Amino acid sequence: MPKIIDHEARRNELAEAFWRVLARAGMKGATVRAVCAEAGWSRDAVDQLFAGKQALVAYAVSLAAQRALAHVRACCARLEGRQALRAVLLEALALERSGPAPAAAWLELLALAAREPTLAAELSRFDREVRAELAAVIAAMVARGEAPPETDPEAEARALFAFNLGLRTRARLEPAGYPEEVVAREVDAYLARLAGGPGPGE
Amino acid sequence: MPKIIDHEARRNELAEAFWRVLARAGMKGATVRAVCAEAGWSRDAVDQLFAGKQALVAYAVSLAAQRALAHVRACCARLEGRQALRAVLLEALALERSGPAPAAAWLELLALAAREPTLAAELSRFDREVRAELAAVIAAMVARGEAPPETDPEAEARALFAFNLGLRTRARLEPAGYPEEVVAREVDAYLARLAGGPGPGE
Repeated sequence: MPKIIDHEARRNELAEAFWRVLARAGMKGATVRAVCAEAGWSRDAVDQLFAGKQALVAYAVSLAAQRALAHVRACCARLEGRQALRAVLLEALALERSGPAPAAAWLELLALAAREPTLAAELSRFDREVRAELAAVIAAMVARGEAPPETDPEAEARALFAFNLGLRTRARLEPAGYPEEVVAREVDAYLARLAGGPGPGE
Repeated sequence: MPKIIDHEARRNELAEAFWRVLARAGMKGATVRAVCAEAGWSRDAVDQLFAGKQALVAYAVSLAAQRALAHVRACCARLEGRQALRAVLLEALALERSGPAPAAAWLELLALAAREPTLAAELSRFDREVRAELAAVIAAMVARGEAPPETDPEAEARALFAFNLGLRTRARLEPAGYPEEVVAREVDAYLARLAGGPGPGE
């Protein structure tokens, strides 16, 4: 009987090894060789799955974006209004917790994307998809009277996502100053203002 | 007569060459050798000024932060209220325009800082100093009745700075989708909400 190899599972395993090495050693250190070592695979086994580092990076990014988006959608399906936005910001987009990509790896990736249009396009697509989810939640809040009627859901979603990216970046640079409860407090203050005043919180 | 060399001017010249190479080639490509070539200097001349790449990076970051902070302070001294915040966001913190560090270089730097505590501390200090300026402007807005009395200037300043970092990052990844007028519109929408409604704008 021929040996059956689950290529997708193997690709995912390697993508996860890539993220760990990237977070630890930066893009410079995340060579195919280092990723092989991290995964405990031979170089040959890796070469059968990916045509090179660029293909591995593209796959790893696409996988992380897919997973994060699924997490965002699950939050928005399970909860509504401010509770949904809060869950998206504190869980689904808290990549250092929801994996597979640690926050330090995302910063490396943003830097690389600034010089690689294909990667930038993939990240921008992810960005748009998440913002569409956030805008739908905000539009429903307006419809239920949970946010002021003049709220522009698209604009609020863009601002919210920008705020979150900035907050995560700062928390990453100054971890001691941003324990989880401080991040949660900043998110809650932001969401209270979006809703036009203090609200359900948690 | 001995030759007088202005060490500070020479250090600054090299720091500026470093930022250009960093933006173009990433941290991996920004070797001391590449920076020498960019500046048109001999390696020896560079070695007299900096003990190595780490010292050069530290100097370049400190110089860029100092200049950006001076620009922020000038905006806040020249203007007040929303006009001051708008100028800070659209001029002083629009690093791709105000130099010396192009936006692509800042992304590289954030990625490096996530792994180098000294650099992270320098960026966090810059972050705090800018936020203190923004908070003072917002506190004055509250005192003049230009923002709701329940506004927390510190919290608003943190949120505003986070929003700006996220907006800049996204604009960097998707330049075609973020021409200057789109960035300005997002900033204005954000500031209008901070002030509790539509206001003077530009």
